[in-house]
Amino acid sequence: MSKFIDIHTGMKGIDKAKLTDAHKKDTQIENSEGVKFLHVWADPSSGKVFCLSEAPNKDAVLRVHKKAGNATEEIYEVPIEIE
Amino acid sequence: MSKFIDIHTGMKGIDKAKLTDAHKKDTQIENSEGVKFLHVWADPSSGKVFCLSEAPNKDAVLRVHKKAGNATEEIYEVPIEIE
Repeated sequence: MSKFIDIHTGMKGIDKAKLTDAHKKDTQIENSEGVKFLHVWADPSSGKVFCLSEAPNKDAVLRVHKKAGNATEEIYEVPIEIE
Repeated sequence: MSKFIDIHTGMKGIDKAKLTDAHKKDTQIENSEGVKFLHVWADPSSGKVFCLSEAPNKDAVLRVHKKAGNATEEIYEVPIEIE
C-alpha cells in the first residue's frame, strides 16, 4: 500500500455538506479497489479539493473517484512524508 | 488560524534526507510568522511536494517558505476538511 494525494478542480463555492456527499460516494465503494481515503481538504475560493488516500496503486484511486462521479487524473504517489 | 495546503514543483528525485533538510529550514523560522507546518508529502517521480500548515493567513505561509529558500506561490486555504 502506498499513499496518494489527488487534486480536484472546479469546486468553487463547495461547502461542508457538498464535500461530505461527494466523499461518501468515494468511501462507499473504496473497498472494491482496496483504497482507503484518509482525509479531504477543500478550498471553496479556488475550487480545489485535495484527497489523501492509501491504495495499492494510482489506478485504483483513479477508478474509485471515476466510479463515484468524482473523476480526476491528477493523482500523485507520495512515498516520502514528514509528520 | 486557518489551514493551508501549498504545492512545490521541480523536486524530481527528492529523497527523505533532502525533504527533511528543506522542511527544517521552514520549521526553524515558522514561529516568526505564527505558522505551524503539520505534515509534508513528496512525490519524487513528479517532483511535487505538498505541505499542510496552520497559519494566520496565506501570506504568512508564503513568507516562511520564501525566507527558508522553499518559495512557492501555490498556496490554498482549506477551511473545509473531512477526517
